[in-house]
Amino acid sequence: MSDEPGRLTRLTWGPAWREAVGLVHGWMEEAGLPTRLDAVGNLMGRREGRRAGTPALLLGSHLDTVIDAGRFDGVLGVLLALAAVEELEVREKRPAFALEVVAFADEEGVRFPCALTGSRAMAGTLDPAVLGLTDRDGTTLAEALRACGLDPEGLAACARRPGEILGFLEAHIEQGPVLEQEGVAVGLVEAIVGATRLEVQVEGRTGHAGTVPMRLRRDALAGAAEMVLAVERLARGTEGLVATVGRLEVLPGAVNTIPGRVRFTIDLRSPEDGERTRVLADLEARLEEIACGRGLALQVVTTHEARAVRSDPKLLDALARAQARLGLPERRLVSGAGHDAMAIAAIAPVAMLFVRCREGISHDPAEYAAPADIEAALAVLVETLVLLSEEFR
Amino acid sequence: MSDEPGRLTRLTWGPAWREAVGLVHGWMEEAGLPTRLDAVGNLMGRREGRRAGTPALLLGSHLDTVIDAGRFDGVLGVLLALAAVEELEVREKRPAFALEVVAFADEEGVRFPCALTGSRAMAGTLDPAVLGLTDRDGTTLAEALRACGLDPEGLAACARRPGEILGFLEAHIEQGPVLEQEGVAVGLVEAIVGATRLEVQVEGRTGHAGTVPMRLRRDALAGAAEMVLAVERLARGTEGLVATVGRLEVLPGAVNTIPGRVRFTIDLRSPEDGERTRVLADLEARLEEIACGRGLALQVVTTHEARAVRSDPKLLDALARAQARLGLPERRLVSGAGHDAMAIAAIAPVAMLFVRCREGISHDPAEYAAPADIEAALAVLVETLVLLSEEFR
Repeated sequence: MSDEPGRLTRLTWGPAWREAVGLVHGWMEEAGLPTRLDAVGNLMGRREGRRAGTPALLLGSHLDTVIDAGRFDGVLGVLLALAAVEELEVREKRPAFALEVVAFADEEGVRFPCALTGSRAMAGTLDPAVLGLTDRDGTTLAEALRACGLDPEGLAACARRPGEILGFLEAHIEQGPVLEQEGVAVGLVEAIVGATRLEVQVEGRTGHAGTVPMRLRRDALAGAAEMVLAVERLARGTEGLVATVGRLEVLPGAVNTIPGRVRFTIDLRSPEDGERTRVLADLEARLEEIACGRGLALQVVTTHEARAVRSDPKLLDALARAQARLGLPERRLVSGAGHDAMAIAAIAPVAMLFVRCREGISHDPAEYAAPADIEAALAVLVETLVLLSEEFR
Repeated sequence: MSDEPGRLTRLTWGPAWREAVGLVHGWMEEAGLPTRLDAVGNLMGRREGRRAGTPALLLGSHLDTVIDAGRFDGVLGVLLALAAVEELEVREKRPAFALEVVAFADEEGVRFPCALTGSRAMAGTLDPAVLGLTDRDGTTLAEALRACGLDPEGLAACARRPGEILGFLEAHIEQGPVLEQEGVAVGLVEAIVGATRLEVQVEGRTGHAGTVPMRLRRDALAGAAEMVLAVERLARGTEGLVATVGRLEVLPGAVNTIPGRVRFTIDLRSPEDGERTRVLADLEARLEEIACGRGLALQVVTTHEARAVRSDPKLLDALARAQARLGLPERRLVSGAGHDAMAIAAIAPVAMLFVRCREGISHDPAEYAAPADIEAALAVLVETLVLLSEEFR
């Protein structure tokens, strides 16, 4: 289901997303789960536990995609959650606690400049000011909700009380190459990285490429090149941390002109907030040193900052024991990408399951996860629910 | 006249350049010079000599600029040539030979990957294949000419027969710091450096900035950054040689995506062709080494190549004697920049005159030459014409 012919684009609150919500809603009903759609478009299908009034274990992910997306990111986690709950029914296992399959609205944050909208609304951490954000056409988020028959006034009511939720399990494709490299189908996510984004501007002096002797130059690009390598070197020297210069612009940008100004971004992620803070300080000092040594002016602005989230040890342990029961190898890894689980962590224990994907590709039509790996992930989810059911009191 | 508000950008065949050609064309007509515009956009205003059928002494430079340019580079030489010819008229001096004021098209070579387009067309050394070169928008050079009402079919007819041209005198700002350092207003150019321009493409693998560990990356920008520093290091190690990476583009260019492809230019210049060839070979080997070490694909294309050119001794001598007559000190120097005179040297003797400029700055809004220095250059040009006129038979 796509908003565009020939490629997959399912933006939240758009026509394809609404169709997808309708389809999953139908499947939830077929599975006998009473459903609910909250004010931002989070779809929930609930199976009550043996005892009334117990909190629910949530399982799921999101139905929206980026532009020109792959077919697995998000939707796989929703379908695995629904399949796991159906499999429990087949096996006539009913845990003491309730189960809820959740399809979050707007994880990707493509249309409006805000992401994890559905899960943050559920966690009660979404600033109501986001309702005033506009898309490229000037439509506000509140208007987009109304156009779907949703009620922006109901935003506060999306928030779940912490006591209502026992925990949240999210299955997702890895979006990275680690599991494939190690020949493992399913991995356990110990932590979701924290991230910092910087905008850097380096200013030197433009000049004629033929007439200014090398020793008299203040070349902004040569300085920025040293900085790009410093970013790489610092990240390589810190296990688990990644840093990327993804955008870089050279001004004025002519073949025969010494660059006078360069602007670039740094994206820095680590599962350890302390490490991230330390490397960031080292990096800023190193950039300053490079700029000084070359007579360049340097400006560094932080544009984004998010703390790391750790998976709940008990949920992780249950997943690990489920894997052991199934004879699957245990591989723990870190998620370098953000997920709905990050937002839900504010009100409940969370844990994630990663499914191996081909060449680590995601956000691309080439995104792929093999049926056998998806089956393995389903088996782990089902076994984990069985195990938690046996142990819950 | 600029293509952009707030800064000076007059790219050849663009709207501001066309306007400038129209303005100079009007001034030539006011000065009583019959004009001609050739197929690539070279504008010529001719004043016949006392005798019919004599070859012409050409004087001039170019009207196009780089992006965010200064107000003197190129255009000063065109206006000095026109003023010199007008001054001869005022003094009622008519040499035996014809005089032609030339405003060359596309000296800078910013829009298409080819420079000295107008002067090479006039010299008959421009490969007609350049008509198929494309700009960033995919427009070919032939299409750009047609959009100006020029005729790409007429390219061959731009070539002047060697016998038609007595010589070419070009006045230009120095674009370097030598004359200012020595307190000299006008210098004589003994030689113009040879130059090579390369287009380099580095291809790695795009990926998610959060999920691909550092050791599994093939980051095209990190590789390109090493290459930029290698260019700088090699040039620093060779006296008299300069090398510049002036343009660099990163694809896809998103803050959270590892760059998969980088394209950049290298501009390498030296007064010694042998040195340039040697450094070029070292550089290509070093780029290959960097690409190999990082698993990147490398493509290097030579887009421009020009040998060093020496000024004609007789023209230089005439300029020197004119300076002596005016009581001006003589200072000879090398041009680190390429000029239209380089191309014209293929069919006629050439010589250049440099005007002192502030801090050696060019290709920048801060570019400046003092009115007194410009007047001195005009006096030298006029006196040289008078002197050649007296001696020509």
